[in-house]
Amino acid sequence: MTTEAARRNVTTTRVVALRDGRVRERTDELTGEEPLEIRAAGPGQTPVRVAVTMRTPGHDFELSAGFLITEGLVRPDAVEGVTYCEDPDTQRYNIVTVRTRTPFDLGTAERNFFATSSCGICGKGALEAIAVRCAPLGPGPTICSDVLLAMPDVLREHQRVFDRTGGLHAAGLFDTDGALRLLREDVGRHNAVDKVVGAMALGTGSDGAVLLVSGRLSFEIVQKAAVARIPIICAISAPSSLAVQAAGDLGLTAVGFLRPDGFNIYSHPDRVRIEVAG
Amino acid sequence: MTTEAARRNVTTTRVVALRDGRVRERTDELTGEEPLEIRAAGPGQTPVRVAVTMRTPGHDFELSAGFLITEGLVRPDAVEGVTYCEDPDTQRYNIVTVRTRTPFDLGTAERNFFATSSCGICGKGALEAIAVRCAPLGPGPTICSDVLLAMPDVLREHQRVFDRTGGLHAAGLFDTDGALRLLREDVGRHNAVDKVVGAMALGTGSDGAVLLVSGRLSFEIVQKAAVARIPIICAISAPSSLAVQAAGDLGLTAVGFLRPDGFNIYSHPDRVRIEVAG
Repeated sequence: MTTEAARRNVTTTRVVALRDGRVRERTDELTGEEPLEIRAAGPGQTPVRVAVTMRTPGHDFELSAGFLITEGLVRPDAVEGVTYCEDPDTQRYNIVTVRTRTPFDLGTAERNFFATSSCGICGKGALEAIAVRCAPLGPGPTICSDVLLAMPDVLREHQRVFDRTGGLHAAGLFDTDGALRLLREDVGRHNAVDKVVGAMALGTGSDGAVLLVSGRLSFEIVQKAAVARIPIICAISAPSSLAVQAAGDLGLTAVGFLRPDGFNIYSHPDRVRIEVAG
Repeated sequence: MTTEAARRNVTTTRVVALRDGRVRERTDELTGEEPLEIRAAGPGQTPVRVAVTMRTPGHDFELSAGFLITEGLVRPDAVEGVTYCEDPDTQRYNIVTVRTRTPFDLGTAERNFFATSSCGICGKGALEAIAVRCAPLGPGPTICSDVLLAMPDVLREHQRVFDRTGGLHAAGLFDTDGALRLLREDVGRHNAVDKVVGAMALGTGSDGAVLLVSGRLSFEIVQKAAVARIPIICAISAPSSLAVQAAGDLGLTAVGFLRPDGFNIYSHPDRVRIEVAG
């Protein structure tokens, strides 16, 4: 993380705090939130604006690359590099450009999505759109249930910013032995996953087979994991109906309500070796 | 809620559940999640696609109207009505059209946003964009601290779907006496707020002065509350830096970490009458 980003990912404010019947005014820390404009350009192309997302400053290059990859707009191996805006008149740290090795065409990507939604927009159309750009994962690897059960505590221990502000979502990438390979945080839960995927693509993070998110499991998170070829996806809270359907179709193992005392497996349970004492 | 939506807002699935060392396979309920395409059209205009959002089916008309209002695309009094798609070849319940009394122009709205971001995209630009379409709220009304402290339990008691699936965000609209006037839930936290605002505009819900959201307080939630002229906005969890800044600029009282034993006030504390025993 750059020094500039580190300065802005936590800010302070004055609050009036009531606790157990006592009022006092004190300084409190807040999770940083600022807009980031993501641009993309192929060789010789002028950068085009792809999206503006609200995010917690820090790991902006990973977020931008990861966003383009998980939205199916750029292949992981087509990312050449990422830079902040070089125009001195603009907000240098809130605009990034992802340079790609192949020509970038936003229009094609948009047409691909809507072309597959031939029945109008529906869950089936959304699933088909993902299937087009992302083949289902094959079997393996496997993970032991005890390793899964230990992961929430590991994630929590490593959430440094969360401990200060209580305001961040986390995404952790683990290997099948339960070692935390990478942790990213953001005010937006999709952003935390994009930062992990971007780190894998940019080589600034390790690979891993298990993604654990601190919140709920939505369709979009499953889609992002599938595009990034992460076979096991876990959440501390509940999955949605379309998340479970997508995980099933795309060959991902979806685990929900993962807590130290248990979990639910919603799809492809064959990757989890359940070891029960006694 | 229509019967069709009610059928789809909770679905069931088979899960492999491990709990306290015991494995069993059982049926579990999941929060419904499906895409909704929101279209808009003024008098005599052909509907144009404005957005596709993943949402929990139910209160789709309120969500669509509320989205257009809180994004600053349509004024509350310009909403004439909302209909599902009438084309028999499409997914009838996943496309809605909001009919407006005045001509609808998506391009103008987009230009307004980016024109104000003259310094490039940054927090300041985002705040200025909101200020352009939304004057700061004046003083009042006030609420007693004891009323605030009781609100989280009231919200929780009324979250029917949450109790079954654990997978939904809630937004509750209260009056200053602590009565819950309206509760809406969704897999997306912004959607829950849009459903509340849409209900106010469509006259399917009551007005209220206090919004309580079950999760965190982001810039976008504050923006939506400001456009809907809701002066007091509370969250069970933490606010972000830009949320606090926006609430301060727009004259909203922002309350975070609202729990039965206390809360923090981040902006305009004058609306809260703190009553401490003894």
